[in-house]
Amino acid sequence: MKYRVRFKIWLEKDGDVVMGLGRDKLLREIDRLGSISKAAKQVGMSYKKAWSFLKTMEDRLGIKLVETRRGGKNGGGAVLTAEAKKLLEEFEEITDRFEKLRKELSKK
Amino acid sequence: MKYRVRFKIWLEKDGDVVMGLGRDKLLREIDRLGSISKAAKQVGMSYKKAWSFLKTMEDRLGIKLVETRRGGKNGGGAVLTAEAKKLLEEFEEITDRFEKLRKELSKK
Repeated sequence: MKYRVRFKIWLEKDGDVVMGLGRDKLLREIDRLGSISKAAKQVGMSYKKAWSFLKTMEDRLGIKLVETRRGGKNGGGAVLTAEAKKLLEEFEEITDRFEKLRKELSKK
Repeated sequence: MKYRVRFKIWLEKDGDVVMGLGRDKLLREIDRLGSISKAAKQVGMSYKKAWSFLKTMEDRLGIKLVETRRGGKNGGGAVLTAEAKKLLEEFEEITDRFEKLRKELSKK
């Protein structure tokens, strides 16, 4: 039998999801675009949904993920905290380890 | 940050799913109960859905998974083929390897 192993991973704290593919993409787009609304648009999510995702992640993890500044010519902006960058880095490392195992176990 | 890594795995062939948690449970119950209808009931699936799952898996993998015999006092029965048992065994091994990695990467 030939097959490819596929997987989906996410992180939980006390049974609640704190990180997954959608949240990972959202954070990366915030980092790239410097704006929650632009990032939300990029990942096909409403601003309200994106904001709610971030707030819930922050509450569950007990850390601040995004620093926002209001107003100004370009309507404010958002930057990731060091903790958010660390979380992204760890999630990427975990994903890489799973991907390596996935390849090893797939039968061609 | 503390978190638990969670995962879901499945097997695909040519982009089509051929094995996953639901299918794994269904096959195991068929093996245990010797009947597709009893197994379907056990996993909360209609007989039609279970039969369709099996047929699709067999078509996609190009192997026979279940041998059925009709009639008789107890209304026939079903037994797994050697290939089905091998598939279950391999899926269990894959799951165990992922579970080991999951534990290793979870941060308490």
